[in-house]
Amino acid sequence: MSNSFFKNYGPISIYEILKKLGIDLKNLKMNQKILDVKDLQNSNKNEITFFHSKKYNDLARNTKASFCITTKNLKKELPKTCVSLIVENVLVSTSKVTSMFYPDALYDDFDETVSSANQTNFKDKIKFGKNVLIGKNVSIGSNCKIGHNTIIEKNVTLGDNCSIGSNNIIRNTLIKNNVRILDNCVIGKHGFGFFPIKKQNLRYPHIGIVIIEDNCEIGCGSTIDRGSMSNTVIGRNTYLDNQIHIAHNVKIGENSIIAGQVGIAGSSVIGKNVKIGGQAGISGHLKIGNNVEIGGGSGVIRDIPDNTKVMGYPAKNIREFLRDNK
Amino acid sequence: MSNSFFKNYGPISIYEILKKLGIDLKNLKMNQKILDVKDLQNSNKNEITFFHSKKYNDLARNTKASFCITTKNLKKELPKTCVSLIVENVLVSTSKVTSMFYPDALYDDFDETVSSANQTNFKDKIKFGKNVLIGKNVSIGSNCKIGHNTIIEKNVTLGDNCSIGSNNIIRNTLIKNNVRILDNCVIGKHGFGFFPIKKQNLRYPHIGIVIIEDNCEIGCGSTIDRGSMSNTVIGRNTYLDNQIHIAHNVKIGENSIIAGQVGIAGSSVIGKNVKIGGQAGISGHLKIGNNVEIGGGSGVIRDIPDNTKVMGYPAKNIREFLRDNK
Amino acid sequence: MSNSFFKNYGPISIYEILKKLGIDLKNLKMNQKILDVKDLQNSNKNEITFFHSKKYNDLARNTKASFCITTKNLKKELPKTCVSLIVENVLVSTSKVTSMFYPDALYDDFDETVSSANQTNFKDKIKFGKNVLIGKNVSIGSNCKIGHNTIIEKNVTLGDNCSIGSNNIIRNTLIKNNVRILDNCVIGKHGFGFFPIKKQNLRYPHIGIVIIEDNCEIGCGSTIDRGSMSNTVIGRNTYLDNQIHIAHNVKIGENSIIAGQVGIAGSSVIGKNVKIGGQAGISGHLKIGNNVEIGGGSGVIRDIPDNTKVMGYPAKNIREFLRDNK
Repeated sequence: MSNSFFKNYGPISIYEILKKLGIDLKNLKMNQKILDVKDLQNSNKNEITFFHSKKYNDLARNTKASFCITTKNLKKELPKTCVSLIVENVLVSTSKVTSMFYPDALYDDFDETVSSANQTNFKDKIKFGKNVLIGKNVSIGSNCKIGHNTIIEKNVTLGDNCSIGSNNIIRNTLIKNNVRILDNCVIGKHGFGFFPIKKQNLRYPHIGIVIIEDNCEIGCGSTIDRGSMSNTVIGRNTYLDNQIHIAHNVKIGENSIIAGQVGIAGSSVIGKNVKIGGQAGISGHLKIGNNVEIGGGSGVIRDIPDNTKVMGYPAKNIREFLRDNK
Repeated sequence: MSNSFFKNYGPISIYEILKKLGIDLKNLKMNQKILDVKDLQNSNKNEITFFHSKKYNDLARNTKASFCITTKNLKKELPKTCVSLIVENVLVSTSKVTSMFYPDALYDDFDETVSSANQTNFKDKIKFGKNVLIGKNVSIGSNCKIGHNTIIEKNVTLGDNCSIGSNNIIRNTLIKNNVRILDNCVIGKHGFGFFPIKKQNLRYPHIGIVIIEDNCEIGCGSTIDRGSMSNTVIGRNTYLDNQIHIAHNVKIGENSIIAGQVGIAGSSVIGKNVKIGGQAGISGHLKIGNNVEIGGGSGVIRDIPDNTKVMGYPAKNIREFLRDNK
Repeated sequence: MSNSFFKNYGPISIYEILKKLGIDLKNLKMNQKILDVKDLQNSNKNEITFFHSKKYNDLARNTKASFCITTKNLKKELPKTCVSLIVENVLVSTSKVTSMFYPDALYDDFDETVSSANQTNFKDKIKFGKNVLIGKNVSIGSNCKIGHNTIIEKNVTLGDNCSIGSNNIIRNTLIKNNVRILDNCVIGKHGFGFFPIKKQNLRYPHIGIVIIEDNCEIGCGSTIDRGSMSNTVIGRNTYLDNQIHIAHNVKIGENSIIAGQVGIAGSSVIGKNVKIGGQAGISGHLKIGNNVEIGGGSGVIRDIPDNTKVMGYPAKNIREFLRDNK
């Protein structure tokens, strides 16, 4: 997890963390300081991680974290250097701990730090329209344009030669060079991620950001949510048409073309040179290969290998689809 | 029909109403005052109602209305206390009469009553962003936040602890406590309801409102239309993702979760604890039971009983769908 | 192509054009002035056209253009009055030439020409909300209303009695009389049209406009792109619901009704009196006849003849669809 724009409120003592999780553990130095919460792979000494599925056994065995939120059954995979914290629901407990370190990433209230662009240092550096607002921790490259009523909220980096249209709202986003964002988009808001618990939804923090690589274009009325633990990424030279929804943690490869009203659900990974027709939908946690073509209106519910053309709901090989639907 | 924010221009004399409908009726006191127009069930003495389908025979027999717009065939079901007004097209005639009582509910021009939030009494009570506009007949609870460029048009009630994002437009809406509305939403506009008559569409008034119960979250770019005769309701603790469209008169139960780009057509009723996957569509006038799960991309064209999982277009039992599409 | 709002930067010498295309042609007067670029049918003497498919043989034989961008194989169809310019990719080369004549139609940066409505001549003529912006080359009829934060960018003509809601962005659009545009729409931006070349997308100019005929209504959150060479047209008395996407060059006939979240891909032509249910999608370059009804959720991938009811994905006769899906 790199490029985080979110303030880490740690170190937090292990005592505070155990209290939050309702865990009673003896033989621990209760004032030990925990620095951060990360996934199994990226965490280090004095950090806390989580482990909720045997899918991740290999990563668990090699984690460098000092503490790990996990279950009785999974515990045995962890190295001796890592203290297990046994809980009922790993993801809910992890959410609680992540909220302690990153409370600012939990809810997305409107950004109160913004100022009018013409009252900022950017006023002589960029071309901007009427009523443009710019928040804290924003950096903007040379030769950029920002349209009317657009709000660049906190934690945004813009490269060179970007054209941002009107009525956009952007936060927690890293935009590289030569990117065009048309109008009415919302980019960098938290994803649709929460736990339904006892008739109350518990939101978990989204500490990922949105990264939009060089030369991309994002159409009008699109929404791109930031990631929860990892980032949401739009690859180099990828073009999105109007009214597209990209959910949290999605990664799209370079040189892809995505037509209007497409929706991509959380954590799916799309390859390079992919073409997706209008109104197609892609379920969450899927892997779509390189050079894939997905016909308009398709509903993709399974992984798709490289160099494949699919269509239908559920999507299947396009020849098969056309043969079955003569 | 409760909570109406719309001004009733009645009483209106029966003479004016008959003239509007092009009806010539003798033996009536032409200066009799009619107070309101309501449906069969809710109307009272000195009010006018309408009756257009034998589906409603039982309600018709027990109506307390003094007048009823109906057809020759249906007339016989009405009680003697109710004078029949025989017309060719009951719904069109009802629309004309409703428009006499509620002309303000017919078109949704922009709200000219708004003022800048910092020129209102709310300025010390709520946190608000730049360029926030607030209309007439608005009440706001404690500890609310309203984001930049958001327009709270006339006839809006906000409970406590609500967070309204930026670039939203809200009117004719009752929002309860702890509700989060993200960005770029339009809530409370009239529905897509009109009669196509002789190459000109005749709009009918929408005198219902939108009600959003406690603890709801509404995602970016969503639209929720207000009801025509009844209200549009989002139940307690129900979460909507981005780019969702909820049409007029829809009712969604509590603790439901609705993913991105879902559309629910007019007058459908969704139960409690319902989960709807991304891009699913639900036709109008359907009844979806409690604890129903609808797969992403589904097209629902029939009622769904409680505790059922469906998927497909048209949606069917999910096991059947997966078996047929191995 | 009529009603173009785009400045023609011609005449341009044939020398400049050949240089751009990398063509070496002898025996030409290199200072010959070319006035415009048009399609085969509409071009005249001293204009340049393009010819890329044998589908257009008949038009090619009768073109009045002085020059034509084409291929070796197609060249023979052109009249002797027309000089062939042989290229590898006709459409890409045409795009390059069109960009020379109409560079302003290539990208849609925010409109820097706008002023606050209350600083324009319109301030006593129309009713407008707060923070309304109006660009150059805008004309507005009598009795119009323009809502808060709406941006009427350059090249917009509004007829009489139009009601434009709030948060809209409109450019390069001809709106006739009695038109209602609700909120959050983007109308008249360039379409999703470009050539993917060597890992860089080459945008082609969109010199068409959007035309919205009398008595139309456009719902909240809709996007209507302007045409590339021809116009995008919404016919008289046609109503669009919320969150609809109409791509470039689409033409919709009069008295049509299009429900929420429908998408119509580029260059499709929809007849009169057509009804399209919610979330239906129509592929590009199709012809949908008059009096057609398309069920909600349908995916239309083939032409549909007049007076037909279809449903399904791919859409087929509705009786067949219902029989196959009992």
